Amino acid sequence: MGLKVRAGFAHGQNTQIEVDDFDLEGPREGEVLIELKAAGLCHTDMSFFDGSRDWSDYPIILGHEGAGIVRDVGRGVSSVRPGDHVIPVAIPECGECRPCRSSKSNLCDQYFIPTPRRPFSRAGRPVRAFCELGTFSNMIVVREMQVTKIRNDVPLDVICCIGCAGATGVGSALYTAKVEAGSSVVVFGLGGIGLNVVEGARIAGASTIIGIDTNPGKEAAARAVGVTHFINPVTLKGDIVGHIRELTDGGADYSFECVGHRDLVRQAVECTRIGWGTIVSIGILPGSQEMVLRPRSLQEGRHLTGSYLGNVKTRTQLPELVELYADGKLALDDLISHRIGLEDIAKGFSMLHDGVARRVVIEF
Amino acid sequence: MGLKVRAGFAHGQNTQIEVDDFDLEGPREGEVLIELKAAGLCHTDMSFFDGSRDWSDYPIILGHEGAGIVRDVGRGVSSVRPGDHVIPVAIPECGECRPCRSSKSNLCDQYFIPTPRRPFSRAGRPVRAFCELGTFSNMIVVREMQVTKIRNDVPLDVICCIGCAGATGVGSALYTAKVEAGSSVVVFGLGGIGLNVVEGARIAGASTIIGIDTNPGKEAAARAVGVTHFINPVTLKGDIVGHIRELTDGGADYSFECVGHRDLVRQAVECTRIGWGTIVSIGILPGSQEMVLRPRSLQEGRHLTGSYLGNVKTRTQLPELVELYADGKLALDDLISHRIGLEDIAKGFSMLHDGVARRVVIEF
Repeated sequence: MGLKVRAGFAHGQNTQIEVDDFDLEGPREGEVLIELKAAGLCHTDMSFFDGSRDWSDYPIILGHEGAGIVRDVGRGVSSVRPGDHVIPVAIPECGECRPCRSSKSNLCDQYFIPTPRRPFSRAGRPVRAFCELGTFSNMIVVREMQVTKIRNDVPLDVICCIGCAGATGVGSALYTAKVEAGSSVVVFGLGGIGLNVVEGARIAGASTIIGIDTNPGKEAAARAVGVTHFINPVTLKGDIVGHIRELTDGGADYSFECVGHRDLVRQAVECTRIGWGTIVSIGILPGSQEMVLRPRSLQEGRHLTGSYLGNVKTRTQLPELVELYADGKLALDDLISHRIGLEDIAKGFSMLHDGVARRVVIEF
Repeated sequence: MGLKVRAGFAHGQNTQIEVDDFDLEGPREGEVLIELKAAGLCHTDMSFFDGSRDWSDYPIILGHEGAGIVRDVGRGVSSVRPGDHVIPVAIPECGECRPCRSSKSNLCDQYFIPTPRRPFSRAGRPVRAFCELGTFSNMIVVREMQVTKIRNDVPLDVICCIGCAGATGVGSALYTAKVEAGSSVVVFGLGGIGLNVVEGARIAGASTIIGIDTNPGKEAAARAVGVTHFINPVTLKGDIVGHIRELTDGGADYSFECVGHRDLVRQAVECTRIGWGTIVSIGILPGSQEMVLRPRSLQEGRHLTGSYLGNVKTRTQLPELVELYADGKLALDDLISHRIGLEDIAKGFSMLHDGVARRVVIEF
């Protein structure tokens, strides 16, 4: 079975994202054909054309956030069937490897094993899809281990953002840092991830949530989802670390770096409290930039930890977050600022880049 | 009451430690006079005369590990009385501040508040004592909040090492990293701290304990306390990180850096397993050396954490470690390789520096 699809892709670094027709092979054994209804635009996709990632396998079909409906399944697929609402996920959950059997990690071993399979092609040449997904295509074929079945009654054009931004942000607060009720939280960067960290911190019952962004336009949306103090480092007089330590009576209990910059990681460490400050590094640092940290800061009892998709096990735990949304506890709707058609994808990314948009969603 | 004492002290950087007579004022309100029976030599003391620490307040009486007997108490002291066996501790436990009331940290707020009190003096001039202790003196006067009462039936010339090396090493494994039974552990540096980390890992039931040291003379003692694999990076052919990852089937569950070097911190991070590798940074990095880390290593679900005295609450938890020793579970005796008199302290430090000694204990 051969399908014609239309998809957003990058053809090299320092270019614009483009849209073109591709061929899609139907599902083989263990694979699922999904018709995407919506897909979210994420900064990570931009790294394939904004010059910030070392990558050579172009063209690559982008998109790793989305939601859709199963249209066909290959032999042996048992967890979903045509008509099911699903979220394609970047990290597989095979259910069998050590991480899948452990409660400590969502990083399935399969995520690190390259697969030669290329369902997409163009002019007979196989084309790579980001995270083996490529949700900027109206149809995708993915492995069953990368498909999360969800309830059929939540709007796909909202829940599409939960597979990356939602899971990463909310999960980082709830599952990685395990934010405690009454605690103080600092969030560096109030984009799609940062706002979801705020959501998670609010759901966890944090009493102080300090949001930091150089864009004053972010303040209103951030306060709407739970930020209690907004700091713009550009207009702040004096040292931001000292200011946060003062606001939190000696240092925040938790901080989250959602931008991806060495200096902010350092600030995120320093602004937390001696003894138990927990710093979650989420933002991807550009190129070969490294973290440079003051050893004593860590040795004074702080904890620096990474979070990959918020420690959310994609097939078994992501539905818990969908429940939070369905119960009205997770305000995903507020995060989506713009809805566009696929042909406007370059414009969508430019809004994301300029900070005009919170989350931009493609509707197919 | 004025006492004459004899104490080991540093009179400047890049000098030898010396021994001289000092005056000691008796205990004021809330203070305790302790007659030291034994004191342990630690690399941290060396930093005041080996050129590695930025310090100007010389002379300073050194020593922060010891054990002794209470000889007098000031007004208001209620937790100890003359005749009690005690361990003077570097970190106070006031019992009232936020960290003391929290289970998360042993870093009492009082530790960070400078005290002007100087019980020691020489020729009428007040003299500083390291950590407000100065256990290289045969008598010391310290605040009650820095005194841990212990049972009277353990040998003081062994248990003296538990206040720093023991607590830091064993505590890092048991309380900071919370090593799990059956797990794999890597220890960089098999000195007084590293060997105690091995003890802690063994007590916790780790099944693989990899000890790393450039000194082949460390292997026997390390194997005696629980190391299952010894690696000498000098003679190892090939990459140590790759070698550890192979030995541990993809990366160690826990690693402990007990040397204090940027490159080893990096190796300690990289040699752990994606998803849950926990790295405890214990060694003090020299001067202004900073940690430089590959961001992705942390973001792939690793946890980098510091440990200050092994997260052991000094007055309420240290007695638990004394019990482990009394029960025969913690082999402190094996750690002590040399016993010396105070007058030989410079020789003791030189043995420590050259790696000839494991732990050197002064007997008063």
